Amino acid sequence: MKTHPTRLVPIICEALAREPVQALLKESGAAGYTVFPVEGAGTHGARTGDMAEFTNVQFEVIIRPDAAEALLDRLQVEFFPRFAMVAYESDVRVIREKKF
Amino acid sequence: MKTHPTRLVPIICEALAREPVQALLKESGAAGYTVFPVEGAGTHGARTGDMAEFTNVQFEVIIRPDAAEALLDRLQVEFFPRFAMVAYESDVRVIREKKF
Amino acid sequence: MKTHPTRLVPIICEALAREPVQALLKESGAAGYTVFPVEGAGTHGARTGDMAEFTNVQFEVIIRPDAAEALLDRLQVEFFPRFAMVAYESDVRVIREKKF
Repeated sequence: MKTHPTRLVPIICEALAREPVQALLKESGAAGYTVFPVEGAGTHGARTGDMAEFTNVQFEVIIRPDAAEALLDRLQVEFFPRFAMVAYESDVRVIREKKF
Repeated sequence: MKTHPTRLVPIICEALAREPVQALLKESGAAGYTVFPVEGAGTHGARTGDMAEFTNVQFEVIIRPDAAEALLDRLQVEFFPRFAMVAYESDVRVIREKKF
Repeated sequence: MKTHPTRLVPIICEALAREPVQALLKESGAAGYTVFPVEGAGTHGARTGDMAEFTNVQFEVIIRPDAAEALLDRLQVEFFPRFAMVAYESDVRVIREKKF
């Protein structure tokens, strides 16, 4: 069995950002992604434990490390100022990258 | 682009545990979380391959490493004896932690 | 709190493969799994940005490292030729493995 080191980039965003994020992923060279609805909550403001819940979508993107860097840069510069979202990355080993 | 090393803590639990887990997360200092319904199956009893399926919810929590330790301790001591659940953790790099 | 190093194996596949994958998981010695519907998109063919979207299911399997190797081998040899699917793995630390 052969695996390739690659990146997993989950992106949680308000539903309004779904189509812009999908367009970005098509430009980014992502190998593939999944998307599904989630409820989310994040800390807003100063009070500890002050978490508001609302409906979001969660993307999980499989992408080469170099392309992941560029994707995260664009998310931070172009998307974070416009939309409520969170993104993170981790290292994974993929078995087959070619199709979903 | 700046990233912060942090923790991802997925928690899979029976639906009955959803509200108690949400209350725990608000106390735990989690930066944010998502939650979504899943079907799950786990091994029960001695027979290999004996897996029962039922509906659960899956939380995915982004949380600082020190707060993750305390969260997992409370899950293990206070929640595991009362609810059917599984929790694990991994290291991730988050781009923006402030809001969902 | 005690954790065990183990593996997380997400498997994204067309809905048609759901039952065969579940049967495989029961044979594989997986400690447990969740499954949920997702929309997915992957690259097909040569054109950059040519991503088709369709409905899939996403499994997330918790499994011992040795059993993960065998599972991924079987997916690659027996399943990848028959179904549209992607699988990857990462290292996680599980708090409790016995039940879902």
